[in-house]
Amino acid sequence: MAEHGNSGGQDLQVSFSTNPGKYKHWRLTFDGELATLAMDVDEEGGLGAYVLKQNSYDLGVDVELWDAIERLRFEHPEVKAVVVTGLKDKVFCSGANIFMLGLSSHAFKVNFCKFTNETRLGIEDASSTSGLKFLAALNGTAAGGGYELALACDEILLLDDANSAVSFPEVPLLGVLPGTGGLTRITDKRKVRRDLCDAFSTVAEGIKGKRAVEWRLVDHLSPKSKWAETVKAKALALSTQSTRPGLAAQGQGVTLTDLDVKVDGFAFSYRYVTLVVDPKKRTAEITLKAPVTKEPTKNSRDKGADLWALRCYRELDDAILRLRTQFLEVGLITFRTEGRRDFLLEAEATLLQQVNDGDWFAHEVLQHMKRVLKRVDMTAKTLLCLVEPGSCWAGSFADLLLFADRSYVLDDSGADEPATITLTPLSDGRLPTGNGLTRLQTRFWGDDAAQAKLRPFVAESRPIDGAQAEKLGVVTFVRDDIDYPDEVRLFVEERTSLSPDALTGMEQNLRWPGPETMETRIFGRLSAWQNWIFTRPNATGEKGALSLYGKPDRPTFDMRRT
Amino acid sequence: MAEHGNSGGQDLQVSFSTNPGKYKHWRLTFDGELATLAMDVDEEGGLGAYVLKQNSYDLGVDVELWDAIERLRFEHPEVKAVVVTGLKDKVFCSGANIFMLGLSSHAFKVNFCKFTNETRLGIEDASSTSGLKFLAALNGTAAGGGYELALACDEILLLDDANSAVSFPEVPLLGVLPGTGGLTRITDKRKVRRDLCDAFSTVAEGIKGKRAVEWRLVDHLSPKSKWAETVKAKALALSTQSTRPGLAAQGQGVTLTDLDVKVDGFAFSYRYVTLVVDPKKRTAEITLKAPVTKEPTKNSRDKGADLWALRCYRELDDAILRLRTQFLEVGLITFRTEGRRDFLLEAEATLLQQVNDGDWFAHEVLQHMKRVLKRVDMTAKTLLCLVEPGSCWAGSFADLLLFADRSYVLDDSGADEPATITLTPLSDGRLPTGNGLTRLQTRFWGDDAAQAKLRPFVAESRPIDGAQAEKLGVVTFVRDDIDYPDEVRLFVEERTSLSPDALTGMEQNLRWPGPETMETRIFGRLSAWQNWIFTRPNATGEKGALSLYGKPDRPTFDMRRT
Repeated sequence: MAEHGNSGGQDLQVSFSTNPGKYKHWRLTFDGELATLAMDVDEEGGLGAYVLKQNSYDLGVDVELWDAIERLRFEHPEVKAVVVTGLKDKVFCSGANIFMLGLSSHAFKVNFCKFTNETRLGIEDASSTSGLKFLAALNGTAAGGGYELALACDEILLLDDANSAVSFPEVPLLGVLPGTGGLTRITDKRKVRRDLCDAFSTVAEGIKGKRAVEWRLVDHLSPKSKWAETVKAKALALSTQSTRPGLAAQGQGVTLTDLDVKVDGFAFSYRYVTLVVDPKKRTAEITLKAPVTKEPTKNSRDKGADLWALRCYRELDDAILRLRTQFLEVGLITFRTEGRRDFLLEAEATLLQQVNDGDWFAHEVLQHMKRVLKRVDMTAKTLLCLVEPGSCWAGSFADLLLFADRSYVLDDSGADEPATITLTPLSDGRLPTGNGLTRLQTRFWGDDAAQAKLRPFVAESRPIDGAQAEKLGVVTFVRDDIDYPDEVRLFVEERTSLSPDALTGMEQNLRWPGPETMETRIFGRLSAWQNWIFTRPNATGEKGALSLYGKPDRPTFDMRRT
Repeated sequence: MAEHGNSGGQDLQVSFSTNPGKYKHWRLTFDGELATLAMDVDEEGGLGAYVLKQNSYDLGVDVELWDAIERLRFEHPEVKAVVVTGLKDKVFCSGANIFMLGLSSHAFKVNFCKFTNETRLGIEDASSTSGLKFLAALNGTAAGGGYELALACDEILLLDDANSAVSFPEVPLLGVLPGTGGLTRITDKRKVRRDLCDAFSTVAEGIKGKRAVEWRLVDHLSPKSKWAETVKAKALALSTQSTRPGLAAQGQGVTLTDLDVKVDGFAFSYRYVTLVVDPKKRTAEITLKAPVTKEPTKNSRDKGADLWALRCYRELDDAILRLRTQFLEVGLITFRTEGRRDFLLEAEATLLQQVNDGDWFAHEVLQHMKRVLKRVDMTAKTLLCLVEPGSCWAGSFADLLLFADRSYVLDDSGADEPATITLTPLSDGRLPTGNGLTRLQTRFWGDDAAQAKLRPFVAESRPIDGAQAEKLGVVTFVRDDIDYPDEVRLFVEERTSLSPDALTGMEQNLRWPGPETMETRIFGRLSAWQNWIFTRPNATGEKGALSLYGKPDRPTFDMRRT
C-alpha cells in the first residue's frame, strides 16, 4: 500500500458514510433503555495493507464508532446508557494499529488522531449535553487507545482477573504519547495524582485489579463469574442519571439517511452545501445555502433528516472530513453563503424555540450544529469568509464568520442586496467553541466593551452593514468594489504560499485566546507535543521506537533532552 | 563552529555569571527612580561563529538581559520604572539571530527559547509582584523577538516615523512561529482581536504608526522631535504605579556577588548546592543543603547575597541552567537534601515574617525562590526526589518533592533520624508554579479531600513520616530498606532508557493538570507547536525557510497541512 496521504492531489479515499447494517467492526444492540456497543474488529477489514489484530483500530473502525454515537443520539432517544465493550477474548481493545501508524504520512496521522479525538470528545458531549451515559466494560486488556476510549466514558468497569489491565504502553514501548486525550483525561477528568499518572504511563504492562481502583484509573472491578450482571447493574445505575426521554420516546427516533452527494471531478454537490476543490491552487470553496423553502415552524421532527438545520450541517461535516483526509494539500477554505435570510432565521428561531420547549430532537440538532462548527474550528486549514452582496451571513452561519482567520466584506452600496451580517442569540451562548466560550466571546476575548456594543445587534438580530461591521469588529476588512477582488485574490495567493506548518501552528495559537478547557488542552497541548514526537527520529526514524515495533531490533535514541 | 549542543558529554560552555561591568550588549544606566536598559549588541560578541547584526540576540545577549533584571530587583530598590530601548539607528531589536538558530541543534534551540521565555516572564513577574514597571521605547523597528521583548513590558511606545514598525516576520519569512510568547501575548495580554493578530503575524513588514495603536499592538506613538521627553514622561507615569520603595531605599541595594563554584571533572560544588553529573549514565544528582549555621532572625538584608535563602536558590538556578545548556543528554535529576531542618525552618519562617512586615528585600528573596523553583519545574529532565534518613525535606525544599515526577521514601524505622517531610505555610500559597496554583494544589488537583487532609500538617509544620507520607500522597512510593535501593536503581535505569522525546512530552502534559495561565500556555501550547515546526523540513530542512534565510534560493514546501 502507498503511504497514507502521500499523493499530490486527492489522497486516501475514506468514506464517512456508513450505518449499522454495514459495520465491519462494531455490533450495536439494544435492550430497553440500554444499548451495547461492542468492538469486534475484523482483522482483515482495515483501510490499508495491515492486519487489525487484537481489536486494534484504524480510521475505518473509528468512523463506525463515530457513526454509532451519532445514531444513538438521533435514532435512539429511548437509550439512556451505553455499554462499550469488546467481543474478543482477553482483550478489550489494544488501541490504534501500530502498523497503520507506521505506514501513514505525518499529515495523515495527525488528521487521523484529530478525528479519533473528536469522536471521544463526542462521547463526552453526548453524556454532558444529552445525558447519554457511557459505561466502559473492559472485559480484557485496554491498552493505549483502548484505555483512552474507556477514559472518554463516564465510568469504567474492569474485569478482575490475572490478565485484564489498563495500560499506556506508548511511552515505554513506542516512544510516542497516549495522544488521544489519555494524558489529559487521567489528570483532568479522572483526577489521578500526577506522579501516579507518570508511573502508570511508563509501565508497559499497565495496572490491574485493586490498584487500578486505588489509583482511580477505573471505577469498578468485577470477577468473571459476576461479569454480565455487574455490567447490567452498573449500566442501569448510570441510566438513572440520564436526562434523556428514554422509553417514553421509543419509536420517535429520526433515521440519519445517507447524504446524497454528486461528484463531478473535484466538485462535490450536496443539497445545501457545495464543495469545490482546486488542487492546483491548493484551495477549496464551500458554499452554504439557507433553506430553499420555508421550514416547518412546528413538529420539526416529522421532517426527520431532511430538516435543513440537520442536513446542512451533516453535509458541512462530510465536506470538512473529506477535505481533511482526501485533500491534505488544500491550505485554505473560502466560505460563502447564499439564499433566503428570512428562511434561515425563521428555521433557527423555530429550532431554538423547540429546544427551549424541551424537544429532544431539536436539542440534538442544535448540539450537532455545535459539534460540526467545532470540527470546522479545529481544521488545520485557513478559514476565510467572504461577505458579498446577496450572501446570507445570518444565524449559525455567522458563527463561521466570527471564528474565521480572515474575513472581507465587499461594501458595494450600489448593489441590489448589499452585504449584511445578522447575528442572532444563537451566537450568544448556544454554540460554544472548544474553550467553552461562544465564538463572539472568543473573537472579542478580553474586550468587554466590544462585546457590549454588539449585544443589541445580537439580541434583536439586527442586520449589520459593511461600515458597521468594520466598526464593530465582526469582520477583518471592509473593501469597496474596486479594491475587494484584488485584495482577496492576493490574500489567498500569499496565504497558500506560506509554510503550511507555520500556519497550522499560528492558527492553533491564535484561534483560542484566553481560557482553556480539557478539550483545548487535548488539541493544543497534548496533540502539539504528540505531533512533535511523531516527527522525531526517536519515534519515526529508521531506528525509532514506532518504526521498529514488532521487529527484533531495539530502537536507538538520540538522548538529548529538549 | 560545531553545531550547538551536538556533542556527547558536555555541550556548549555558556556562563550565566556576569554583571553590568562585563556586559557586551546592554547599557544599564540610572536616573533617580528610573533606569534605562539599552540594547547595543556587539556584532562580533556572539557565542558562536555568526555576526549579531541589527541588534539581534543569541543566548549570551539574553543572559545579560536576565542578569540586568535580577540586579534591578536586588541591587536597585530605588528604581520604579525601567525604559527598555536600543542604541542602534533605525532598529530597536531584530529578534533572535537567524544564523545562530540555523547552527543550533534542535535540543539547544529549544533550551535557548526556554531561557528567553523565562527571562521575559521574569520581566512580567518583576512588574506584577514587585511593582517594577517596564516601558518599551521602540526607537526603530522591533521585529520578531524584538517585538516579543516589548510585549513583555507594561507599555509600548513606538517612534512615529516612516521606518519604525512592530512586526512578526517569522511565519511569512522563516516558516516558524514568534515562539517567545509572541502569539500568546498579543491575544492574551494585549487583547488584540484574533483575526487582526493573524493579519499582523503574516505581514512581514509589520504595522506602524496609528494603525499599530488602533490594533493595540503598541500603546503610544511619539515623533522623533519629542522622543526623549515622551520616553521620560511615559516612564515617570509608569513609575507612579509602582509599589517599590523608590528613593527612600536608595543605598539599601544588595549586591549579587559572584557564585563561587568549584569544578572537579563533572562535579560542581557551590556553598549550599552540589551538582554531580554522570555523563555515561546520563543522570545528575543535585544535593541541597539547609543553612549550615543559624541564619539571622532580624535584619536579614545585612547578610546580603550570603543569606542562605538567596544564595542557595541562586546556586540551584545556576546548576539547573548548567544542566540545561551543557548537559543536554542528562535525562534525569535526582534531588537529595541534607542539613539542619531546624535551621532551615527558622530561616524561612524569618523570611516569611519579614515579607509580611513589608521588607522589600525579603520579598525579593521569596520571589526569587519562586522563580528558581519554576525553572526546575520547566526543565525537560525527569525530576526524582529521594527522601532518606538524615535528609532535610522541609519548607521550600518540600516544594521540589511535591512537584517531582517520582519520589521514594526509604522508611527505615531503625534509623537514627528516620526520613520525614515537613511542609510549611510557604508551600500553601507563597510559591505558585506556572499555572498560578501552589505545587500542593497542583499535585492534588481536583482532589479537595486530599488537600484538606494535608492542611493541618502544613499549618503546624508537623513532620510527616514515611507511612503517613504514603497515606497522605505527598510521595509516590514508600519502601523499606530491603526494597528501596533496587527499586530506585531500576527506576533510574528504566527511565533513562526511554525515548527522551516521549518523556519530555509526557512530563509537559502531566506536570500541570487543570487550569492554564498565559505562562503555561506559552510553554505548553506555543512552545510545543514551535518545537514541532522546528523539526519540520519546511523550516529546518535543506530547502526549509529557516535554513535558506538570507540566501538567494526560495524555500520549497511540502504543502500537506497537518
